[in-house]
Amino acid sequence: MLILMENRFIDRDVISINDFNRDDFLALFKCAEMMRDHEKSENRHLFSGRLKRRRLAELFYEPSTRTRTSFNTAITELGGCSDGFSGIEGTSVVKQESIRDTILMYNANHFDVLVMRHPLDGSVQWAADVSDVPVINGGDGMNEHPTQAMLDAFTLHILNDNRLDGIRVGLGGDLMHGRTIRSLSQALALFDNVSIFWAADDFFKMPGDLERLLINRGVKVERLDTPEDVLENCGFYYMTRPQTERIVGKSAQEVRELLQRYRITPERLERFKGKILHPLPINSQLAEIDNLVYYMGCQGFLEQAENGIFVRKALLYLMMPEEGYTLFRGVLNPEINRSNNRIFREVNEGGRKDGNGEKIVRNIEDGLVLDHLKPASAEEIARELMLVEGGYSCITASVAGGGEGKAKSFLKTNLHGLSERELKRIALISGEPTVNLIRNGGVAEKFVYLLCGNDNCVTRVVKEDVPGKFYYDGEIRCGYCRRPYAPENRKISGGELNRYAGSLPRRG
Amino acid sequence: MLILMENRFIDRDVISINDFNRDDFLALFKCAEMMRDHEKSENRHLFSGRLKRRRLAELFYEPSTRTRTSFNTAITELGGCSDGFSGIEGTSVVKQESIRDTILMYNANHFDVLVMRHPLDGSVQWAADVSDVPVINGGDGMNEHPTQAMLDAFTLHILNDNRLDGIRVGLGGDLMHGRTIRSLSQALALFDNVSIFWAADDFFKMPGDLERLLINRGVKVERLDTPEDVLENCGFYYMTRPQTERIVGKSAQEVRELLQRYRITPERLERFKGKILHPLPINSQLAEIDNLVYYMGCQGFLEQAENGIFVRKALLYLMMPEEGYTLFRGVLNPEINRSNNRIFREVNEGGRKDGNGEKIVRNIEDGLVLDHLKPASAEEIARELMLVEGGYSCITASVAGGGEGKAKSFLKTNLHGLSERELKRIALISGEPTVNLIRNGGVAEKFVYLLCGNDNCVTRVVKEDVPGKFYYDGEIRCGYCRRPYAPENRKISGGELNRYAGSLPRRG
Amino acid sequence: MLILMENRFIDRDVISINDFNRDDFLALFKCAEMMRDHEKSENRHLFSGRLKRRRLAELFYEPSTRTRTSFNTAITELGGCSDGFSGIEGTSVVKQESIRDTILMYNANHFDVLVMRHPLDGSVQWAADVSDVPVINGGDGMNEHPTQAMLDAFTLHILNDNRLDGIRVGLGGDLMHGRTIRSLSQALALFDNVSIFWAADDFFKMPGDLERLLINRGVKVERLDTPEDVLENCGFYYMTRPQTERIVGKSAQEVRELLQRYRITPERLERFKGKILHPLPINSQLAEIDNLVYYMGCQGFLEQAENGIFVRKALLYLMMPEEGYTLFRGVLNPEINRSNNRIFREVNEGGRKDGNGEKIVRNIEDGLVLDHLKPASAEEIARELMLVEGGYSCITASVAGGGEGKAKSFLKTNLHGLSERELKRIALISGEPTVNLIRNGGVAEKFVYLLCGNDNCVTRVVKEDVPGKFYYDGEIRCGYCRRPYAPENRKISGGELNRYAGSLPRRG
Repeated sequence: MLILMENRFIDRDVISINDFNRDDFLALFKCAEMMRDHEKSENRHLFSGRLKRRRLAELFYEPSTRTRTSFNTAITELGGCSDGFSGIEGTSVVKQESIRDTILMYNANHFDVLVMRHPLDGSVQWAADVSDVPVINGGDGMNEHPTQAMLDAFTLHILNDNRLDGIRVGLGGDLMHGRTIRSLSQALALFDNVSIFWAADDFFKMPGDLERLLINRGVKVERLDTPEDVLENCGFYYMTRPQTERIVGKSAQEVRELLQRYRITPERLERFKGKILHPLPINSQLAEIDNLVYYMGCQGFLEQAENGIFVRKALLYLMMPEEGYTLFRGVLNPEINRSNNRIFREVNEGGRKDGNGEKIVRNIEDGLVLDHLKPASAEEIARELMLVEGGYSCITASVAGGGEGKAKSFLKTNLHGLSERELKRIALISGEPTVNLIRNGGVAEKFVYLLCGNDNCVTRVVKEDVPGKFYYDGEIRCGYCRRPYAPENRKISGGELNRYAGSLPRRG
Repeated sequence: MLILMENRFIDRDVISINDFNRDDFLALFKCAEMMRDHEKSENRHLFSGRLKRRRLAELFYEPSTRTRTSFNTAITELGGCSDGFSGIEGTSVVKQESIRDTILMYNANHFDVLVMRHPLDGSVQWAADVSDVPVINGGDGMNEHPTQAMLDAFTLHILNDNRLDGIRVGLGGDLMHGRTIRSLSQALALFDNVSIFWAADDFFKMPGDLERLLINRGVKVERLDTPEDVLENCGFYYMTRPQTERIVGKSAQEVRELLQRYRITPERLERFKGKILHPLPINSQLAEIDNLVYYMGCQGFLEQAENGIFVRKALLYLMMPEEGYTLFRGVLNPEINRSNNRIFREVNEGGRKDGNGEKIVRNIEDGLVLDHLKPASAEEIARELMLVEGGYSCITASVAGGGEGKAKSFLKTNLHGLSERELKRIALISGEPTVNLIRNGGVAEKFVYLLCGNDNCVTRVVKEDVPGKFYYDGEIRCGYCRRPYAPENRKISGGELNRYAGSLPRRG
Repeated sequence: MLILMENRFIDRDVISINDFNRDDFLALFKCAEMMRDHEKSENRHLFSGRLKRRRLAELFYEPSTRTRTSFNTAITELGGCSDGFSGIEGTSVVKQESIRDTILMYNANHFDVLVMRHPLDGSVQWAADVSDVPVINGGDGMNEHPTQAMLDAFTLHILNDNRLDGIRVGLGGDLMHGRTIRSLSQALALFDNVSIFWAADDFFKMPGDLERLLINRGVKVERLDTPEDVLENCGFYYMTRPQTERIVGKSAQEVRELLQRYRITPERLERFKGKILHPLPINSQLAEIDNLVYYMGCQGFLEQAENGIFVRKALLYLMMPEEGYTLFRGVLNPEINRSNNRIFREVNEGGRKDGNGEKIVRNIEDGLVLDHLKPASAEEIARELMLVEGGYSCITASVAGGGEGKAKSFLKTNLHGLSERELKRIALISGEPTVNLIRNGGVAEKFVYLLCGNDNCVTRVVKEDVPGKFYYDGEIRCGYCRRPYAPENRKISGGELNRYAGSLPRRG
């Protein structure tokens, strides 16, 4: 009775839309369609025992109704149940519990799958690394919200006679600040002959990097003057909400005025034969979609919302095998804590003779020297490392440089070694430090410690203890937030970076 | 095995106690009694599969434990389950999601019935208009809380040997500010020979309109001096909590003093053979019911609390058919958006020749004139409509009147038409406007736009887009908060109002 | 199939670790082990229908994720379900609902067992007194958290080859401010030949009373200098989080420095062959357990966390009989409201002739005299009792005493009698009052009203109406928070106290 399909999702994390290919999408659509057909048939409870006793944890560090509720509906209709939190007020997060520990706690509680939303970019990737059971990204910071893109793509697929190849989609509203436009358009780029048209005020325009990426992947992208122009060219108009919570420096009235020419109103829809979509919620104060449009035949966003149930049901259905169960192991694989964020530099055989080294290691036999620090930051680092309190020696000095930005600071101490956490603290204070480990009065090892440059990346939050990891997919990217790495420390040479890139795991 | 009774509740919304008649109550009592008898028998799980896979959404925009928990218990004991929110902090409401959109979202999530509490009067009626599935009012603003009245009436019915005819009930505490006294007494008024006695400080006295309404419906209402006097006359004393959260201008100490003479204490109960009831919670600081009364035989409010489970179980049981299921349609019936809040005025055939019209339409061929605005409000309206930003003409002027309150303002523009939302904005700024639509230099249509006068009515909140609807039941009433309509604009004549009333749907 | 064991937990409240003995613990361990073995077997759903339709209420007046979630997992895996609240924002507590009324409400909702966390000491004991169904303490103020100690002891039992006799345990972190150290060590004291070693800064040291109690019960307790010393002596190191939320007068940095020498780091563990335990959450900012320790083989706290599920499953399993169900009675046993907090004094037969009495009762025939009040407090008491507003006479006076602390105040009134609540108010204002009841111009009765001296005890909160109850177990203790009673009023003689102690119920 149950249709068995090649299962591309079993035990797989759902972190980024970029982890899935065309065939993955088609398999997901097929299953979601099956869920939808059963819902509309006499047989709607066919799957109601499929995930019996399976438990979904909903870890929403930021509020959610829509995503949380639809996952709830999905797991319930499949016979399972859920628990978790929405907002951190009533949780141990306020007692400084780390993401890792919260995830492990839900693992210890025998949950079979976790859905997580968190304000930090890359946080859900870290959760997935730590977790015994699959993790679904319900939104990580400004980064990704893949199941939204899946349901949007599914809706277009269904409405466009079960194909996305050749589809022509209009985009509107706020293309700049939201994550749904970015994710959906990248999902569409997996298909052939896709055309995207858009119209918006400059303030809300499509980000340049996204436009380039889409064009590189073979999507036709065209900016038109008015929503009417876009509507004329498309079968589907995907409208989005101005992300007022992320817009600074504009008053509500200014946002309202910028949007005015681009609102979806009955007048603008007079000749439109297609469907208006929207990821919801619609801002009822700005009314980017006019009240009257709700009552028109071209309104498609309610069906779209229901498709969220089918897609999430399909995902959960596909992710969890009929038999089998992940036992809680109670241990953490040390591999996940292994960082690869150091560029090692050659050390002159006779450490003492090294021009720079000579000066640096004077006065210490064993210990370390932090070099190329930001001017006057060495003292702050000494305090942070509690060198004096710990009984260690500490010599700091600032060296005036040859020009602006050339001044620098260094720190010598007989402290042995630095933990990842200490290196991160130093990097946050002073940029990416050069670390010289001194043994027997000579430089035994020398490396630059790299830090992801994205301020909102989970790897930059000391207390989370996320190891710095990078990978290579044409450029060096952070293993968590996936942003391209840009060296803070200008002294890393092109050659060094290339060698480093060569040492990284591949992806993409 | 299951007793099939004539089902008066199937697929019916539960919005106001006034939507139910004596037979409805008796049918509900019968079913609630069945639930109660099974609970107390060996057979308490008899109905535990009756609503299997049914899902109840609990949309509590304001906090609740009692109501939410008892609905939860009810649906759980019937085999179904629930989801939703309590307080809006963790929801999309903070992203300006409208009531309508939230309701539709829960419809899309395949819930079978919704319970909603919301601070705006009439909000739950609007939710019921929008929803695909039945909606139960868990409290809308200061308006109604019908299931509380149902359980109170059921308790009296049970305790009074299964009849409410001829019952004698005492009321105490805060008769003025609560909604339970109002609802319960109206429910009792459906029965014969009901007598109500009450004693309270003037500050907490029974509102005059309620007293008149009850007397008109044949209830004997009598104010007595002391609780002791009331207790002597009744078998049941229904005490209520001073609604301190709605009392302004009195300190806690003052409220305590006003209540002192009316608290329910063991001394006052010495000769009382009946039962003390209370909708709960009791304010433990004021102790309107003394601690010792909890331990006396006349304490009836705990049984009353449990009756809330039976009544809500009965309601859910009766509302949802054994078979059948409401599919989510994904569309909204345009009918629910049709307002009837305009009083049309006759337009002189030759618009230009109309004495007033002549003056009004000068300078515009096509557009509109807003007349009889509040003095000096035309400019604010122009800004609100963004006429200048939209490239429209705009002439405003104020006309000094012949006396106090006669001054007025008007606004001419070549803007074509006004949306319901714009009309509402104008009415909120300037009272009910007279709108003249100008075509070819003449007045083509002329109407007064009516607005419900209840400040807390959901129809007055622009972003909710609730259409202005009125009905007639002896007087003109708002279709949402059900308050009598009082024309803001004194220029609506009696004749006009009568004609308008005649055009409205009947109710009551 | 189900192993039936002698059931020591059926229908029993779980309030204090001191209510359970060695055999209770062993029975619980046996059942928890059964739960654990099934989890790790092919048969993990064996008990999944055992508590079908049983409902657990989770009343968390203070936030919790860990405890709440593990109880949730436990009841769900046993086939039951749960409801309740976490944090009081969305509840009727904000409408001044008392603990008693909230408990009764959950009783009326047919819950089978309640888990409660509350900021007041003794609050859960009061809840258990009131409740129809068993109550589990999920943490009451600074007092107890017994299920945490149960799971900690179970973990040690399992890891130590199923025996606690002869175990050697190290304690670290914050021994002073937490409740887990106290509870666990008392649980261990039930076993033979237990040794406890600890090392901590003076600020975090083991409280003297706990050390004495453990030694009295035969535990070997030894303070060592460093964690390394402790680790050398033990198979298990139980680390705890500095209770920063309860530490006043120390900055975060100061706490960090005090902890530095006692953190659990890989270096300190070099020769350790045992397991590191921790009740969790770990403070990720302070990192009392270093990040690297998570990835080491000696990490035992994750297994410990999972044991929380097994122990709570076992508890729920044992507490609820397979058949039978507690019907809600809707009445409260007056016995629970009976206080025993008065020390009666002899009254001279001819009241009038009593030297003191003569002076005291002058001017009243019937009424009462409050004597030995704190200087100048009589007026405040008169206001609190609303004597003037109530139309009673009121004479207050202050009597200068012979030395410091000897001054006192008294109050005469023709008010008849005082309620428990009024006596409590007086005691909170003025210390434990001496009350003389005057009948026919003579002292008819005379007593001292006793109040628990623990500021955070539930019996001191007037609106909760918890009766003052004491018991005797070698010393006089409060029946709720279980702290030793210390008379506030120095005039209670040793003889009086002894007679009073003799009249109290025994315990312990």
